[in-house]
Amino acid sequence: MENNTIQTLINEKKYFEIRKYLNDLNTIEVSELLNQFESSELIMIFRLLSKNRAADVFSYLDTEHQEMIINTMTDVETKNIFDELYFDDIVDIIEEMPSNVVKKILKNTDAKDRHTINQLLKYPDNSAGSIMTTEYMDLKKDMTVSQAISKIRSTVENMENVYTCYVIDEVRKLEGVISLKELITSENDTPIQNLMNKNIINVHANDDQENVAEIIKKYNLIVLPVTDDENRLLGIITVDDIMDVVEQEATEDFHKMAGISPVEESYLKTSAFTMARQRISWLIVLMISATFTGRIIKSYEDVLQSVVILSSFIPMLMDTGGNAGAQSSTIVVRALALGEVNPKDAFKILKKEFSISLIVAVVLAAINYLRLIILTKTPLNVALTVSVTLIFVVMISKIIGAFLPVVAKTFKMDPAIMAGPLITTILDALTLTIYFRFATMFLSNMIK
Amino acid sequence: MENNTIQTLINEKKYFEIRKYLNDLNTIEVSELLNQFESSELIMIFRLLSKNRAADVFSYLDTEHQEMIINTMTDVETKNIFDELYFDDIVDIIEEMPSNVVKKILKNTDAKDRHTINQLLKYPDNSAGSIMTTEYMDLKKDMTVSQAISKIRSTVENMENVYTCYVIDEVRKLEGVISLKELITSENDTPIQNLMNKNIINVHANDDQENVAEIIKKYNLIVLPVTDDENRLLGIITVDDIMDVVEQEATEDFHKMAGISPVEESYLKTSAFTMARQRISWLIVLMISATFTGRIIKSYEDVLQSVVILSSFIPMLMDTGGNAGAQSSTIVVRALALGEVNPKDAFKILKKEFSISLIVAVVLAAINYLRLIILTKTPLNVALTVSVTLIFVVMISKIIGAFLPVVAKTFKMDPAIMAGPLITTILDALTLTIYFRFATMFLSNMIK
Repeated sequence: MENNTIQTLINEKKYFEIRKYLNDLNTIEVSELLNQFESSELIMIFRLLSKNRAADVFSYLDTEHQEMIINTMTDVETKNIFDELYFDDIVDIIEEMPSNVVKKILKNTDAKDRHTINQLLKYPDNSAGSIMTTEYMDLKKDMTVSQAISKIRSTVENMENVYTCYVIDEVRKLEGVISLKELITSENDTPIQNLMNKNIINVHANDDQENVAEIIKKYNLIVLPVTDDENRLLGIITVDDIMDVVEQEATEDFHKMAGISPVEESYLKTSAFTMARQRISWLIVLMISATFTGRIIKSYEDVLQSVVILSSFIPMLMDTGGNAGAQSSTIVVRALALGEVNPKDAFKILKKEFSISLIVAVVLAAINYLRLIILTKTPLNVALTVSVTLIFVVMISKIIGAFLPVVAKTFKMDPAIMAGPLITTILDALTLTIYFRFATMFLSNMIK
Repeated sequence: MENNTIQTLINEKKYFEIRKYLNDLNTIEVSELLNQFESSELIMIFRLLSKNRAADVFSYLDTEHQEMIINTMTDVETKNIFDELYFDDIVDIIEEMPSNVVKKILKNTDAKDRHTINQLLKYPDNSAGSIMTTEYMDLKKDMTVSQAISKIRSTVENMENVYTCYVIDEVRKLEGVISLKELITSENDTPIQNLMNKNIINVHANDDQENVAEIIKKYNLIVLPVTDDENRLLGIITVDDIMDVVEQEATEDFHKMAGISPVEESYLKTSAFTMARQRISWLIVLMISATFTGRIIKSYEDVLQSVVILSSFIPMLMDTGGNAGAQSSTIVVRALALGEVNPKDAFKILKKEFSISLIVAVVLAAINYLRLIILTKTPLNVALTVSVTLIFVVMISKIIGAFLPVVAKTFKMDPAIMAGPLITTILDALTLTIYFRFATMFLSNMIK
């Protein structure tokens, strides 16, 4: 719709109208619109944006569209845009660009900014340092409220967040926090050291972003300061960046639990080949380990040939065991990720899963037994074998399913890889072993 | 640690020291500490908190601890606490409490507040109205900047967020938004209608919270206004509440994908019986549908008895098909949840999954074929049957796995229930059918 309107305007070369049309949209809407255009039209529309709007819109464009724009812009235009951007956005852009584009960007930034950018690029992936921005509002403790407010007024333009101000000493050590809300409601000549909160919650630049997300959630923060080993203020992380982290971490867990290596790009942008590679390694591992299950069946060939009906229950037992285990492992993986439980609770978890699995197992086995003897002509002793197997399979599956993620966490491994396909494969082998053991025990008279 | 310190102080009745100790902790830390105490000690420590701190701490306590406190408090004390709380927190508390406690709370609130609370309680679960708060900063458009700032100064105490102010007309219709940042950097006598942004992003009180989360993420907002059918301002939703929504929605998807009905409480707090109930319904459905798979095996009994080795490949084929399908369904469910794809992209998704599955299937089948003829003494034609089956199984699993969630979304159903156990059960039946069809085709000379 929007696309059509503007396409018509472009065809009719009504630049003034286009500009007017763009003015009525907000930044995000303009960038979504631009993302639908290619090369020459993209550049044409982009050039119609006002100078300080251009930078804002630019930061929300797709990587490929950003690259097209930088490639066709003059040095002066490039500088104009990058001067307006926040450092965390510049770093995000640089990390995605090919080296010739990175060179062009760095060539058109001041020496001081280039230094900051290089510093930020050095922080490890997914660390607090890598997602922080350096545009924060800093004050000195001997300032009065009115001095503080006038400093805020004069520098507000370049700041990502001015509502939380940080009080630092001469060597930039963090001494306190004060909100703009407190400043505007206090007397003009009060020194801010009397007002500031010294009980500061902060993170270290090398802390993992998952950690940062936990703290922001726990304390309901909008912004969190990042410091170095000497408690010097390096930057701030705002809650909107953490929102992305929370979703990213959840996505990673979803993918790991389905046996997929982490995918950075979005679905439609990742090539089929890359996606195939991300999925195939686990499938190969699991395919090969599933052959052990096959070996178990093979080693009970004589039992199966004597009581052929036994093989028809294999899928039901394997599926039910797998599903029961997947339920427990999913619940525990998620509870661990949300911090609802931790490895110290191992015993409580086992006790709880034992009770749950007992209830579930007995109900399932009873339903199964009744169904087999009422609805099908399954011999009584076979129905009994299958149902008793079901009890053990469900209980063991649930307990192992809940336990493995806790073990993983204890050894600082990712609990998520202990769920899903891996657990199903382990449980398949266990299920069959239990099944055939009971079969040889209970049905010895039927086995030749 | 903290627990011990304070326990010693309690035992020694050093109330002054306890109070000093509590003063050094922040609100969240105090509530975490209190959550570890029971009844009488809990009340004793709670009473040592200053009046306005008590309310803050109270809002972060566990439901059971909140209940204990309300039950022992006098009416005046109850009123003191609930006067200080934000409406969204009061509503959350009321929703969790038994009716006698709710009565006590409502008895001790002003008629006007009680009206607001009752209004908020009426919004459907998970709607924007149910998570919004009514403490926002509203201004009139004919105010000047200095009038606006002095209104903010005088009412700041009761507001959840003063950094975004809403401009409303006489009948409370939303006319514009202005940030405190803009106010403090503008001239004192400018009318705010010249400064306010009229391009407002808002949600309706009946909108789903998932929708709210999407808008907040898309536009990087800290706070979002909620309006009614006539565009009258009803409340605001702040980003920290949305963070919980995002996690809650992800947890729901995790659980649904593992065949678990939604769990409201955290893992350790839910009883084993409730948890068993949440897990058993899907297990019963899946157990019964898995017997269809058993029927398929049974109907090919003659094939299996002629070529017994065929049964040993069943687990591998079923697992690989299930895993391949789970990968695709997980990827697509998550991409749908994040808004990376939508049902309109169905054709693109199918095309992509076709390419991915072709690569994956051929590689897996080749590895499997080589492994069978080199490492085991599997007859060539059996190895071929298994490997060709594998190609078809992996391709069909991936395509169905990706397609079902998209179909669900098209029909406004939840894509997440189309992943996990359900898809595995469907694919099991398909896998076996394909397998036995190929077996009868390729191995006709071996079948008696």
